[in-house]
Amino acid sequence: MKAVRLHKIGGPEDLVFEDVDPPQPAAGEVLVRVRAAAFNHRDVFITQGLYPKIALPRILGSDGAGEAQGREVLVDPLLGWGPDERIWRPDATILGMPRDGTFAQFVSVPQQNVHPKPPHLSFQEAAALPLAGVTAYRALFTRGELREGETLLITGVGGGVQTFALLFAVAAGARVLVTSASDEKLERAAAMGAHAGFNYRTDPEWHKAIRAHAPIDIAIDSAGGEAFARALTIVRPGGRVVTYGGTHGEAAIKLFPVFWNQIDVRGSSMGSPADFAAMLRFVQAHEIRPAIDRVYPLEEAAAAAARMNQAAQFGKIVLDVPS
Amino acid sequence: MKAVRLHKIGGPEDLVFEDVDPPQPAAGEVLVRVRAAAFNHRDVFITQGLYPKIALPRILGSDGAGEAQGREVLVDPLLGWGPDERIWRPDATILGMPRDGTFAQFVSVPQQNVHPKPPHLSFQEAAALPLAGVTAYRALFTRGELREGETLLITGVGGGVQTFALLFAVAAGARVLVTSASDEKLERAAAMGAHAGFNYRTDPEWHKAIRAHAPIDIAIDSAGGEAFARALTIVRPGGRVVTYGGTHGEAAIKLFPVFWNQIDVRGSSMGSPADFAAMLRFVQAHEIRPAIDRVYPLEEAAAAAARMNQAAQFGKIVLDVPS
Repeated sequence: MKAVRLHKIGGPEDLVFEDVDPPQPAAGEVLVRVRAAAFNHRDVFITQGLYPKIALPRILGSDGAGEAQGREVLVDPLLGWGPDERIWRPDATILGMPRDGTFAQFVSVPQQNVHPKPPHLSFQEAAALPLAGVTAYRALFTRGELREGETLLITGVGGGVQTFALLFAVAAGARVLVTSASDEKLERAAAMGAHAGFNYRTDPEWHKAIRAHAPIDIAIDSAGGEAFARALTIVRPGGRVVTYGGTHGEAAIKLFPVFWNQIDVRGSSMGSPADFAAMLRFVQAHEIRPAIDRVYPLEEAAAAAARMNQAAQFGKIVLDVPS
Repeated sequence: MKAVRLHKIGGPEDLVFEDVDPPQPAAGEVLVRVRAAAFNHRDVFITQGLYPKIALPRILGSDGAGEAQGREVLVDPLLGWGPDERIWRPDATILGMPRDGTFAQFVSVPQQNVHPKPPHLSFQEAAALPLAGVTAYRALFTRGELREGETLLITGVGGGVQTFALLFAVAAGARVLVTSASDEKLERAAAMGAHAGFNYRTDPEWHKAIRAHAPIDIAIDSAGGEAFARALTIVRPGGRVVTYGGTHGEAAIKLFPVFWNQIDVRGSSMGSPADFAAMLRFVQAHEIRPAIDRVYPLEEAAAAAARMNQAAQFGKIVLDVPS
């Protein structure tokens, strides 16, 4: 079968489109004929060696939709979460490393990770959903406890998780504010229902503008650094800040607003099987369509990864898999 | 009446023992004959001008126990918390600034702030309880959700809140680890039920020693800075870190352990009327006796404040009020 494998650590350019043997499903597993896959930052980080447990060569890809057992399906990429809703087991993994992933014509996954594709979605749209969708769902609802009528701040809109968070929060009846370094991304977010946008490149005092604009009940952030530190000073007393990533590493935070305003900071990562099932029900009930940035053919995976590595995208970068 | 007033911003030495007119209770207020009062860091910070809304001259003191309406009572120092358990109203204040406090023979407080003194406590012990007790109670139980059998880390044991947290957590059936820069304080904590102590002055890698010792379910910290940052790396996945102060200001934190381990950081400050009532029930049910560092006569309030300012104490510093 055709597949995209990583043979050595280096960068997006080290993704190789080639012929490999199709996987042999083990007991309890299902062979999925992949019709579309999608990129996550995780895939790029893996090409750069920024992930634990890297084994090579390996087919990358956590997100996929296709056909299995006569049905149209998509795949929950979280393997072995375990019984505790709060945390995954130490040996839990994500499809696409160390186990072969979805950037291929076939992928083998445990039966319980295969879900019916929401009928309103194409394969490409469904492939855009899994990892970013469940991460956004857990951050917003399971961990963030977002409620109708609340005001949400999403920092650095543009990536997959942020665009799902925007779509989900608008569907849930929240008022959504977004930040970005790009006016074009702010306009696209507005078209998807964002109430207001703030350009942190052109307005260094963006946190003050947001504070003046509206009391913020909850902020979700994966930038870390100054964006996270400022989010703590922006949310209202009793508010929540959900962190689901830290691209910029350390954050120098002031503790006074955290304890004085009785703020919650909630770390969130990926999502449990229950989160995944709830996310699918939510997407179906609200007929949510993922924001797709571009679709590349599978053989151009390296070019797609390079685009992701430049953070130029708005929404998900999808791979069309030849049948 | 005799009272201790602050006439100008400067430091603990500016507390003046003098004669003043006794307070006239307004409608809905009760005149309490104070038998004992106690210091909080807040009082020292006020002498140094480190608090908002300072009006002078003013009788300081948030903690007091005495007699009112023929009963032995203690006073809840939080005035006007409001209806939301999560946060106080913006106009809520604490007894002792801007309103005259307990460092006097009489104090006038709203009726609903007067509670029966737990019968197993002396006036001096009861006076030690209010602000530090309710702060510890809320941080541990309301915000921290400490449960029996869990392992708790208290950073920088010695102050009033930390010693109450230790007493309360041991009574609740938790296993308690403490840190301090003083072996003597660690020994006193052990005598009060702490399971293990770690000297952060003699062991710069104390966080590693704690990680190796036991999985920590919850940490509570008011030091901020490095202690707070390390607490985030010490608690187990799914664990909680409660921050109720930030003596050392900013903290440089790593976000990775927060989101990857799905940790909660919960800011906590003071306590609501419901917290105060629950704290009194808990103290009574477990017959908890506050750790008292020293008792000074009211006229030596300046010396007592100086001791507090040096952080030399273990437990509460109490003032005996002449009748």
